Amino acid sequence: MSVRFELHEKPHPHILVTDLISVQAVDRSFFGTEVNGKKIHLTLSPEEALYLMDVRKAECETPDGKPASFNDVAGAFDGPKFLARYFSFRDWRDRGLIVRPMDEAEGPYGRSPSEKYPAADYKPPTVAAKGQFFYDDLMSVIDDNEEGSRLYEQHWFGQFGTYKAKKHGQFLKLDAYETLFLARHGKYKLNVSAKKIEELALERRPDFLELYQVYEDWRLRGFVPKTGFKFGTHFRLYFPGAKPTMESGEWMHSRHVIHCFPRSAKMLISEWARAIRVAHGVKKTFILAIPGASVHPKKNLLDFLLYHRKGGDIETPRHDKPTYVMLALSEEEQIGGQELAESIEQAKALGLDLILAICDRETAVTYYRVKRIEIPKSKYEYYEIEWVQP
Amino acid sequence: MSVRFELHEKPHPHILVTDLISVQAVDRSFFGTEVNGKKIHLTLSPEEALYLMDVRKAECETPDGKPASFNDVAGAFDGPKFLARYFSFRDWRDRGLIVRPMDEAEGPYGRSPSEKYPAADYKPPTVAAKGQFFYDDLMSVIDDNEEGSRLYEQHWFGQFGTYKAKKHGQFLKLDAYETLFLARHGKYKLNVSAKKIEELALERRPDFLELYQVYEDWRLRGFVPKTGFKFGTHFRLYFPGAKPTMESGEWMHSRHVIHCFPRSAKMLISEWARAIRVAHGVKKTFILAIPGASVHPKKNLLDFLLYHRKGGDIETPRHDKPTYVMLALSEEEQIGGQELAESIEQAKALGLDLILAICDRETAVTYYRVKRIEIPKSKYEYYEIEWVQP
Repeated sequence: MSVRFELHEKPHPHILVTDLISVQAVDRSFFGTEVNGKKIHLTLSPEEALYLMDVRKAECETPDGKPASFNDVAGAFDGPKFLARYFSFRDWRDRGLIVRPMDEAEGPYGRSPSEKYPAADYKPPTVAAKGQFFYDDLMSVIDDNEEGSRLYEQHWFGQFGTYKAKKHGQFLKLDAYETLFLARHGKYKLNVSAKKIEELALERRPDFLELYQVYEDWRLRGFVPKTGFKFGTHFRLYFPGAKPTMESGEWMHSRHVIHCFPRSAKMLISEWARAIRVAHGVKKTFILAIPGASVHPKKNLLDFLLYHRKGGDIETPRHDKPTYVMLALSEEEQIGGQELAESIEQAKALGLDLILAICDRETAVTYYRVKRIEIPKSKYEYYEIEWVQP
Repeated sequence: MSVRFELHEKPHPHILVTDLISVQAVDRSFFGTEVNGKKIHLTLSPEEALYLMDVRKAECETPDGKPASFNDVAGAFDGPKFLARYFSFRDWRDRGLIVRPMDEAEGPYGRSPSEKYPAADYKPPTVAAKGQFFYDDLMSVIDDNEEGSRLYEQHWFGQFGTYKAKKHGQFLKLDAYETLFLARHGKYKLNVSAKKIEELALERRPDFLELYQVYEDWRLRGFVPKTGFKFGTHFRLYFPGAKPTMESGEWMHSRHVIHCFPRSAKMLISEWARAIRVAHGVKKTFILAIPGASVHPKKNLLDFLLYHRKGGDIETPRHDKPTYVMLALSEEEQIGGQELAESIEQAKALGLDLILAICDRETAVTYYRVKRIEIPKSKYEYYEIEWVQP
């Protein structure tokens, strides 16, 4: 006999499991919540009820005994991200794993260790040549080749000669981030002021200053960020000590890329996911940068507590702590930098890693795991985002 | 002895090659333009002059005999996309290939054949069940499983059951494009009007109607566009006759993705290139859609005539027609849909394929070739964009 439950519309939509066999079946599979602290009746969240109807052929009725369909139940609860939440819930359960409502969270669970990066102190060089800034290209050129090749070889600023062929051609070409950095930290003089460079760059891309802040923060910790254009991101990243050529004369490969998401920016999930996909495709670690001061989140933004596996066993609320916390999103949703930062902050407060579950227009779900990074002395928050298949 | 030339500032900045040996050397390599129809003196474009200085160690002087550096020459000509043009010019020449100025174009050259796609007439089905639209998810659900599986199996609308596991779970889930298409062409009735769906979708993404127009155009020609989320684009595309499962029970793989670029939209080149990169990474053909009426371009937007190879030989202006026409762009530049459409239109009028050369912040150049697609009876213009290494 299949599981049965009732859809009540009053005083607000809720779902009740009352018959003993259904209560036991539902509870055994970690669905439902006790009513009044007793397991005589259970309430189901809409996701739980729809899952049991969709996948386990449960039957739902109204109090007067009429059958309630998927759309009757779902329609009664429709609201923000309703289906995105449902399909993300369903996908996690379909993997044989447990999902529980956020209000069961206790925490901090201490299951969110951060990744430590090898920062180093860095003293920027003083530039002993004048540069020419090209206003529409947002780049500068130093045509003093002695000074140019020194800045390139010893500090890896700009590109001397030709990309991957330093000895073909000459002159040092610096992008807007490098130019502004050297103007501020290396007494680099140009045909325009640093202020003017900022203005011109801001006209081109409104997020220029946030990108610069991220560039500067990594540079001052000894890292070398270069353009990430080939990898679809704002920067690719080399660890402290990197030089444009290795001793063997081979090109050095970066293993990290940085994508900057300003707090004030809004972005379609699909566009954001695209950046992660490129990085994944070229086997680089994707680093998310959210510059600016962190704030304390006001209301709960997270969707579900997730239980995962330990060895060969699945973790359950009976014996284990939750493993992750899920933020469910849909492909065509906008997300703000601030909202994402707050979600990560909430996960951190619970001591759990955040899993972003993105439900596409075909209801397929993709998961991204967010891990915190620790860089001594850095000013902002950074996270590794990893595409995972749970 | 190296090539020598002069930078003149008056009446406007220009570069002159006057000594016989330099004139001959420059002309032999297909640089320079005759002055007054005679090869006694040549003028050089700034790109040509800088290339000769940068790579061939040419010397430039002012009329009073003072040496002019790279920045002296470049600074005299600085303007829109100055360095992007120069580095794109340089990269093409560095490959041993010839670049010539646009004003030498004669055309039409008849070297831009279009790719023909197999369109078919398509009659949309009539939907015999009511759907529930979920306003924040922009999706609808049909919970009548008989009608749902018919629409899925015979027409591949939506997703029945679970993605890649149709028999797990039930109910048909349709995205906003499919929902609106069936409301307009298949009498699909929902809890909201088609008008309301448009409004809700437009709030979420301002380019919704353009995306829908593209979806509708391909659907009515018999193609099946589905979400391209996994491939970082708006749609992935199946050719006429495609079904959700092949006879062998295997999943069908798409080989094309569609990215829609509205004429009124502006986009950073880096973001646009990212979409092409993902498609390339998963070995799909990237189709650019520019919906809306085509217009005739007012001013020339193109940068250079390009000569390429024929068999093992390079093509030259002495014996051959140009092969392509180049639009040079830089990573951090904004491009508009209209501007791109006009550039393609100009290339078409010349009878040449367009090459987009994108110069990144490190002066490395990436090339994309634009090929026109012909789809009988379709309303809009479509192009295959292919990453090429000339």
